[in-house]
Amino acid sequence: MNIGTYTYEEYVQLVTSFHGNAAPGLLIGGFIVDLALKNLPEGEFFDAICETPVCLPDSVQLLTPCTIGNGWLTILNFGKFAVTLFEKQTGEGVRVYLDMEKLKNWSEVYSWFMKLKTKKEQDSDLLMGQIKEAGHSILSMQKVRVEPEKIQRKKLGPVAICPSCGEAYPVRDGEKCCNCNGESPFLEMKACG
Amino acid sequence: MNIGTYTYEEYVQLVTSFHGNAAPGLLIGGFIVDLALKNLPEGEFFDAICETPVCLPDSVQLLTPCTIGNGWLTILNFGKFAVTLFEKQTGEGVRVYLDMEKLKNWSEVYSWFMKLKTKKEQDSDLLMGQIKEAGHSILSMQKVRVEPEKIQRKKLGPVAICPSCGEAYPVRDGEKCCNCNGESPFLEMKACG
Repeated sequence: MNIGTYTYEEYVQLVTSFHGNAAPGLLIGGFIVDLALKNLPEGEFFDAICETPVCLPDSVQLLTPCTIGNGWLTILNFGKFAVTLFEKQTGEGVRVYLDMEKLKNWSEVYSWFMKLKTKKEQDSDLLMGQIKEAGHSILSMQKVRVEPEKIQRKKLGPVAICPSCGEAYPVRDGEKCCNCNGESPFLEMKACG
Repeated sequence: MNIGTYTYEEYVQLVTSFHGNAAPGLLIGGFIVDLALKNLPEGEFFDAICETPVCLPDSVQLLTPCTIGNGWLTILNFGKFAVTLFEKQTGEGVRVYLDMEKLKNWSEVYSWFMKLKTKKEQDSDLLMGQIKEAGHSILSMQKVRVEPEKIQRKKLGPVAICPSCGEAYPVRDGEKCCNCNGESPFLEMKACG
């Protein structure tokens, strides 16, 4: 049983090192990405869509060339446990998702995913064991065609110096940068070196 | 000259393997994160804010425990080349940014960043050489206090089965999941296994 080019145990190690712990979502995520990789349509360059920011993007970043920073991974905040890999030019892709009908056969995974038990009530060993044993069997696939316009990143465009803070910022954002426009998450900013 | 716990050369290799190539932004990003790590305020648990989705998040994910999937990295679409590491409880943090005044001393990096040259006009060896030589010297730091509410992720909350597609989705999104609500980036979806 492999996940991408790794053994299951190697993948668990990799995930622990990158993500901090081998969370259940990362393990199922490994099988999701693995199944998608094994069913890629024809083509040379593939982008990824992740329908949740929770856990799953890390499986994609570890197992495919797609990362947040290189722009080949798009994250949608749909709260759905699904990954799509699609060919950049044609939009043709494969979507792999957690199939709730199939998941019913794995009681501990089902109640974890549907939040039917508190963390205390969960049997972690049983949960991890069921995830490993279930492997691809709780997943289903769809052929999809992606509309690239719906996931395109806003282009940075021309850059200018913000008259307020003196840092570079994209002209598209107006007369000042987003921090100086009042969108800043910083309550205080004080030069220190 | 180290970047995090890596030598410069090790970091270049790591970046190439994860991101696909050692892009200039990733190299400067390495120095940004390194400087922030060396100037952390007191505390135990740190989260990260990246003010652009381009390149920089990958430096954070490679050099700190913060990733998109574990939720400790927040990406703002401000188009600004800055990283903040802050203590979860207190919000106290350090923000490191590319200082445009200091950058003026490094002509090839300056014209690359301000988009003053086309890709063809750029001298890639000079650009990479200047980035390595400049190191921390093109960066400045600020002490900041982060307002956690401004960057908090929407909680997933209770989960239900979408009556339209049968997949699990967060109840917060209404009577159907986002894909079935018409927000889907997929033009066609067809079961295939």
